[in-house]
Amino acid sequence: MSIDFQVDFCGEKGYVDVMGYPLSNTANPLTFARKALKDVREAGIEVVHCREGHLPDLSDCPYNKILRSKIIGQDAVGIGEQPKGGVGRLLLRGSESWGIVKEVEPIEGEILVDKAGKGVGYCSDFFLVLQQLGVSHLILCGITTDVCVHTIMREANDIGYWCLLLKDSVGATDMDNRKSAIHSVKMQGGVFGWVSDTEHLHEGLKEAKLIA
Amino acid sequence: MSIDFQVDFCGEKGYVDVMGYPLSNTANPLTFARKALKDVREAGIEVVHCREGHLPDLSDCPYNKILRSKIIGQDAVGIGEQPKGGVGRLLLRGSESWGIVKEVEPIEGEILVDKAGKGVGYCSDFFLVLQQLGVSHLILCGITTDVCVHTIMREANDIGYWCLLLKDSVGATDMDNRKSAIHSVKMQGGVFGWVSDTEHLHEGLKEAKLIA
Amino acid sequence: MSIDFQVDFCGEKGYVDVMGYPLSNTANPLTFARKALKDVREAGIEVVHCREGHLPDLSDCPYNKILRSKIIGQDAVGIGEQPKGGVGRLLLRGSESWGIVKEVEPIEGEILVDKAGKGVGYCSDFFLVLQQLGVSHLILCGITTDVCVHTIMREANDIGYWCLLLKDSVGATDMDNRKSAIHSVKMQGGVFGWVSDTEHLHEGLKEAKLIA
Amino acid sequence: MSIDFQVDFCGEKGYVDVMGYPLSNTANPLTFARKALKDVREAGIEVVHCREGHLPDLSDCPYNKILRSKIIGQDAVGIGEQPKGGVGRLLLRGSESWGIVKEVEPIEGEILVDKAGKGVGYCSDFFLVLQQLGVSHLILCGITTDVCVHTIMREANDIGYWCLLLKDSVGATDMDNRKSAIHSVKMQGGVFGWVSDTEHLHEGLKEAKLIA
Repeated sequence: MSIDFQVDFCGEKGYVDVMGYPLSNTANPLTFARKALKDVREAGIEVVHCREGHLPDLSDCPYNKILRSKIIGQDAVGIGEQPKGGVGRLLLRGSESWGIVKEVEPIEGEILVDKAGKGVGYCSDFFLVLQQLGVSHLILCGITTDVCVHTIMREANDIGYWCLLLKDSVGATDMDNRKSAIHSVKMQGGVFGWVSDTEHLHEGLKEAKLIA
Repeated sequence: MSIDFQVDFCGEKGYVDVMGYPLSNTANPLTFARKALKDVREAGIEVVHCREGHLPDLSDCPYNKILRSKIIGQDAVGIGEQPKGGVGRLLLRGSESWGIVKEVEPIEGEILVDKAGKGVGYCSDFFLVLQQLGVSHLILCGITTDVCVHTIMREANDIGYWCLLLKDSVGATDMDNRKSAIHSVKMQGGVFGWVSDTEHLHEGLKEAKLIA
Repeated sequence: MSIDFQVDFCGEKGYVDVMGYPLSNTANPLTFARKALKDVREAGIEVVHCREGHLPDLSDCPYNKILRSKIIGQDAVGIGEQPKGGVGRLLLRGSESWGIVKEVEPIEGEILVDKAGKGVGYCSDFFLVLQQLGVSHLILCGITTDVCVHTIMREANDIGYWCLLLKDSVGATDMDNRKSAIHSVKMQGGVFGWVSDTEHLHEGLKEAKLIA
Repeated sequence: MSIDFQVDFCGEKGYVDVMGYPLSNTANPLTFARKALKDVREAGIEVVHCREGHLPDLSDCPYNKILRSKIIGQDAVGIGEQPKGGVGRLLLRGSESWGIVKEVEPIEGEILVDKAGKGVGYCSDFFLVLQQLGVSHLILCGITTDVCVHTIMREANDIGYWCLLLKDSVGATDMDNRKSAIHSVKMQGGVFGWVSDTEHLHEGLKEAKLIA
């Protein structure tokens, strides 16, 4: 699962940039995520991407979410609005800034799910898609670790999916939050799943002779 | 909302104790939560409690959740099993350790919802109950901050509820995780809601003339 | 799946009786459902029962559901109330009339799920339980055909479960509604699944050497 | 709520046509639904439309749904495929046949929700959108009565929405199923809500001075 690697979360004039956070932290995992994607593709593991974004009329966006983005956004630019010099209206389906960045974009045959929230539970048909795939285990990378990645991981874990977080392939707007989010997964023997990294994934798939 | 203040999370020989975590951290918010409950009750605000627990046959408990609890539990005692000298089978509906502790137990007329997960989304009818109440704002206290409280807050926030976390009324098994979980709420102008404390709640209700 | 074979739906002084419907129509499928249960148990197929019922404070019961039951109920007795000479408060968890009737009651090792609605989607953790079982196909019997059985069948079918309705093992308060509900399943090549009966199930399991 | 008035359900070379059902039955309610829409728009009542359709790769379409459509479809043409002389791939998002027919298409400011099933529960963010609107009552028209309209009505009713079905504004592939579906709503004092028609809606809105 490749979560929310959109311009809005790691590119210039996207949502995170306009909200005033440094892009280095959210863009940093791209190199690792790209490697992980290469490996799982070679291994024949299904890849599902998802994107956070709202309908053009924002009918699927809670009012407090819009309000808070306007309060913190530069020049009071919030969700659904285009920042000066920007590449599209923020977090809006169809907007350029809402697209997935080149480094980790879906290739033919990969699934792409839209969601209207941080998580997927009541705001997407993500679990419907997952159920059709018939899988029981998920490998997660994406941004941001403590917000979207963690919410999806929590929801998936609560209904029994075995979740593995690749810690070098997840970014965040705040590195302390990221660290704690990773640590939190491992409490209580793995309260939300397991944590590993791209290198171990590579070694594991190699050992299983799923990749060369 | 008073979340998971059960013996299993803050009492002796409950789940958290058996998993090897110090109870001081999870039991600590009880005094503050008790004050908050007193205030909201006086103000006429609806109180909803919830409890995490599974059916006696564990049919609603994912296999990996059982397995992980056995791996970390003292003497390999996991969910559904009774520890030596314990007060009931861990996290099991009907068990003594599953009950809410005296300090913050529900009083007559208050709602009590059971859930089979950290969150409530696909594992309870919590949002059905909430919708019948017709409320739009939630005040949250409970344990543990970074696990159950945060998961419910994320799910509720994603569908538009205005959530307020009382930071002195939430405990955790790890104080760094707790700190980050509280900090994480406030990112992006309040990505999961707001943070306040019992004292400010008291002052606010007083100012609004909802309490004496 | 054995759906809502409760006193409230097919027994004296239960909900359906108090609402003024003849019990013969809802109780009639019991003999067939009993046979079907015997066969699937012998075949080693997992049996899941469910029950409709509400919390004692009715916090999980929509107000219009309570109101409508009072309007149509004899002596204005509705959900949560006990009819004169009755066997418990109607559709209430823990009440005697809420229990499953002897003929098809769960035996040891079978799963029993509670739900607060006709369906299961947002008012139970039914799909969580189903997902832990890892099954893809459901055989349905129960009452009433056009209300609870059909709602669950629709929800399960929408997320991809292969559903088979046993037409002699489903009852209803209105036999025309029952007939159409069965017919409706078969539209569009099986818009909600398939229809068969107890005898064909028996023959099929025999042919597959799953029963003697 | 205007449900699934798409070419696929009431237009030539759409899904229903290819499945071999007469279009007269599904297209018939359009005149009435158009009147109802005119009235509620004048009254200032929010209009929400929905559409059934799948992603181009059918990743959100259960396999049995695809299979059954191929079995019954003319020339084995099923969901996701284009019939000879057709106006697009059947039930596919973005396809021409998937669009809403002219007579009842959304006007500016009206909400349009996509769903991947008959109902909306686990296959759309419909209830998220509804919750943001803050409404408690729904007026339903659309096609088909016994399939999509009824499924949505059941799901909405189960979580407490007050539902009103306009019986002259709902069509079906089978008129007996339609009749029973309407009758079924009224069982048990209104087990799924109420039934009325366009004329009564008009009179009611007039009496309430919401329309001229």
